Amino acid sequence: MAKYNLSKISTRSPKGWDKETTKKKLEGVLSELDELQNLLYAESKHSILVIIQAMDGGGKDGLIRDVFTSMNPQGVEVTSYKEPTPEELSHDFLWRVHQHSPAKGTIQVFNRSHYEDVLVTRVHNIIDDKTAYKRMAAINDFERLLQEHNNTHILKLYLHVSHEEQLSRLKERMSAPQKMWKYNANDLKESELWNTYMEYYQEAFSQCNKPEWNIIPSDQNWYKSYIVAVLLRDMLKGLKMKYPGLKK
Amino acid sequence: MAKYNLSKISTRSPKGWDKETTKKKLEGVLSELDELQNLLYAESKHSILVIIQAMDGGGKDGLIRDVFTSMNPQGVEVTSYKEPTPEELSHDFLWRVHQHSPAKGTIQVFNRSHYEDVLVTRVHNIIDDKTAYKRMAAINDFERLLQEHNNTHILKLYLHVSHEEQLSRLKERMSAPQKMWKYNANDLKESELWNTYMEYYQEAFSQCNKPEWNIIPSDQNWYKSYIVAVLLRDMLKGLKMKYPGLKK
Repeated sequence: MAKYNLSKISTRSPKGWDKETTKKKLEGVLSELDELQNLLYAESKHSILVIIQAMDGGGKDGLIRDVFTSMNPQGVEVTSYKEPTPEELSHDFLWRVHQHSPAKGTIQVFNRSHYEDVLVTRVHNIIDDKTAYKRMAAINDFERLLQEHNNTHILKLYLHVSHEEQLSRLKERMSAPQKMWKYNANDLKESELWNTYMEYYQEAFSQCNKPEWNIIPSDQNWYKSYIVAVLLRDMLKGLKMKYPGLKK
Repeated sequence: MAKYNLSKISTRSPKGWDKETTKKKLEGVLSELDELQNLLYAESKHSILVIIQAMDGGGKDGLIRDVFTSMNPQGVEVTSYKEPTPEELSHDFLWRVHQHSPAKGTIQVFNRSHYEDVLVTRVHNIIDDKTAYKRMAAINDFERLLQEHNNTHILKLYLHVSHEEQLSRLKERMSAPQKMWKYNANDLKESELWNTYMEYYQEAFSQCNKPEWNIIPSDQNWYKSYIVAVLLRDMLKGLKMKYPGLKK
């Protein structure tokens, strides 16, 4: 649990990191990623699931744009989870998520995920603690299914911003014309529940930790995107993939 | 394991059962079922999953026709599982099955099921024992998910015919014009693997037993259909459902 004590984890880059240099380095990593994703698709042995969670204003959309734009969409899919539809609610909470689990050879990105079902629902007392624990156990079963039965490698990302940074971003949405479409009157209300969210986030991270969560300092978008790109590159490199030869 | 020793379980009705009387009694049960299914749909609290497994010629199609024909198809769906498609094979083995898990208020009938993934695949050495055990553990996780997180009540049915009865039914397919469409040159070959199938069936039943399997004596179709209709009626009755009043 200690390792997920969010109030003790910095939301900023370590000292000495510089925006311009990091952005240049990111370009190098992105071109490696483009090649690795092609190899993943060609080999079609492994699949990748990137789970992105964050508070509102944590920078999920920006991260997806920064890291995945340069990849071939034939092998990459992004699924955004919003409030469940009536059809989704008539099934177990993992039903809608399982449908979008990655096929072999592909990368699936979850913009929000099944973790919302043990976060927002808990904060608003839609489910009780007992149900939350059962759901976390079911999440572990589900993630094990993907890992053991479809060679799915899961990259869990929490985009960690400070409460102050969040508030400043939410306010920007009210004034910047190219950000107004993201403004939701409800966001500021949710922001007041920050500490409760942090508590439930920490619990979800420590209960559902196979694989472990990556807490990404995200007050600076350039740092966040670079760190995530490197994590993904290293995951793909670790698979020791090879282009298949001619089929016999 | 003893309770699933198939060679010790009769494939025929107990003494004293009579075809004509039983068929009349079935009609009474079917009209109860029609009413109960309407109530299930109206209340939309519970969901029902009927899993039907059998050797070729075990009478799965006939059972579905006998028991489910009289129900409103708006709340009943039958899914038949054949050899997986390439898209299905690019996901974990439960992916295609989860999509068809029953919505609240409905009955889902699986004509064959995820159990084929620990049966036919084992008999033909497509998977090893270790994989089979992992799959059976995953099946238990999956069935628990449906039960705990969508009020799904699972009725597991094995249609138990003798090897002799099977052979006589397969031969009938070669001569009876209305049955020829079911004939598959491969069926007789599979029939020779009877004992291996029985062994793996028994193992699946004892490993995946929440809820327990119902072994239905099925050499006589009239007996089989009656017994299954009664099991389903009793399951639905046990839910103590009520028509909801006017919405406020």
